[in-house]
Amino acid sequence: MTKEQRAAVDAQFRQADFDGGRSPEEMRAAFAELMAGPPPAGVTLAPTKLGGRPALEFVPDEGAGDGVILYFHGGAWIMGSPATAQKLTAALVRRTGARAVSLDYRLAPEHPFPAAIEDGVAAYRELLDQGIPAERIIVAGDSAGGGLTITTLLAARDAGLPLPAGAVAFSPGLDVTRSGESMTTKAGVDPLFTKESLQRLSEFHMAGQDPYQPLASPAVYADLAGLPPLLLQVGTNEVLLDDSTRLATRAATAGVDVILDVTGDVPHVFQAYEGVLDEADAALDRAGRFIRDRLTS
Amino acid sequence: MTKEQRAAVDAQFRQADFDGGRSPEEMRAAFAELMAGPPPAGVTLAPTKLGGRPALEFVPDEGAGDGVILYFHGGAWIMGSPATAQKLTAALVRRTGARAVSLDYRLAPEHPFPAAIEDGVAAYRELLDQGIPAERIIVAGDSAGGGLTITTLLAARDAGLPLPAGAVAFSPGLDVTRSGESMTTKAGVDPLFTKESLQRLSEFHMAGQDPYQPLASPAVYADLAGLPPLLLQVGTNEVLLDDSTRLATRAATAGVDVILDVTGDVPHVFQAYEGVLDEADAALDRAGRFIRDRLTS
Repeated sequence: MTKEQRAAVDAQFRQADFDGGRSPEEMRAAFAELMAGPPPAGVTLAPTKLGGRPALEFVPDEGAGDGVILYFHGGAWIMGSPATAQKLTAALVRRTGARAVSLDYRLAPEHPFPAAIEDGVAAYRELLDQGIPAERIIVAGDSAGGGLTITTLLAARDAGLPLPAGAVAFSPGLDVTRSGESMTTKAGVDPLFTKESLQRLSEFHMAGQDPYQPLASPAVYADLAGLPPLLLQVGTNEVLLDDSTRLATRAATAGVDVILDVTGDVPHVFQAYEGVLDEADAALDRAGRFIRDRLTS
Repeated sequence: MTKEQRAAVDAQFRQADFDGGRSPEEMRAAFAELMAGPPPAGVTLAPTKLGGRPALEFVPDEGAGDGVILYFHGGAWIMGSPATAQKLTAALVRRTGARAVSLDYRLAPEHPFPAAIEDGVAAYRELLDQGIPAERIIVAGDSAGGGLTITTLLAARDAGLPLPAGAVAFSPGLDVTRSGESMTTKAGVDPLFTKESLQRLSEFHMAGQDPYQPLASPAVYADLAGLPPLLLQVGTNEVLLDDSTRLATRAATAGVDVILDVTGDVPHVFQAYEGVLDEADAALDRAGRFIRDRLTS
């Protein structure tokens, strides 16, 4: 059963076109269409503001605990919004009973690196300023938003802020130098990205800035000491696979609690296929357990 | 609280002496004394046989499901028995409702590599011959037994046997060439082992045989394609840390489902300190969930 599910998702991904050859406006419209769906069940959405940016709040219908998930959507730093990630965000909210605030951080090319990180830290700081204890906050995100999850933690640490209870990153992008072996070992296996398409996409994001720096390529250049417990989930059909394996290895070397959770034969952010792909539901269940473990410990 | 727990365990480990400078008989006696404890709660133990070797069966007092854990104890291939790992084995049995059979595989130097692997495969094959479906079997082990867990899977795969539902390895030894970076980055941090002590210990095990082969050093030399879902748990205070990070990375590259679960600031097979170290209980809870997930999927 699930082999057919995986094949259908793979075929859908191969029809997508986010290779960086179109304008940001065209890619944004296509991405919004790809990710469109009915309002997620079990949560109530409300527009809000956080750290000076628009945001979308997700409150579980069954009543929220005192935990908060700060969520960062994906979209290669160029595309996406809290709406394009609403299914994923709601999936975590339903599984944890925590409310979520999904940030509409600034995008490239209008606002290149490190604008998104500045927004991420400002949002996290405002949650603390609202009186929410750091140990009641989880930071989470997918793809570029998974990268932003890690770099927001690094920037928050360097700013002397108390760090959250944990962080969850789905298929994070953690190396704009694209030096992972999976850039070649998974070429063609990845139905969505290639090393070349990621290079084109990251040119919008980096805008000529140095890629060899910790906040641009944390899987290779960041000192990860002091980070809170991390959960990294990734599929094996990804050129970005080694962004996660390398970050996990470096985090472990630095003494950080880290779970690298790899699912075979699935593509980038496969968790978005909740209800379609059995592996997505199972991975989200594990992510929900991780968040609950962190918010209750 | 848990910082004091970790310091106490670290101090106890630093007093242990398994640096390979004593005779196997002396180390066996010391290891048996270190690991001695009251009969584990919640399980009934009974001697049995499996694959031509003595074994110890663990049946949960609350009644066993139809799942079976084939367990391999630790002890650097030289020491240990099902009794020295009984606390760990019972911890998994209580958390999963599966019965366990812990194998008294042959030890070096009397029976060097690959005798233990032959015993592991013979035991697994007998479980299959008893009519237990492969998908109702979990293979698990700690330290050398965690290495044996992985190499038993590899040898079973190469023999054409159906593979089990999953495997759990606690701080597995997976590279007798000792080429991981953690051999130096964790020198002194690891309270139990050094690269030099592991070399002395492995001389008993390898008995002059080639260490650069898949079943001796699977973290570096094995083709891992086709392995069932793996859970690798390891502490960051271990020179063996990179045995796990490298196996996880190579498994992911090969398309295998793998969870690398790293706990910060704890030593080799910290899970043996259940009830003493909070991190041990939490890690065993995650291992129990993994096993239940695999036996019910």
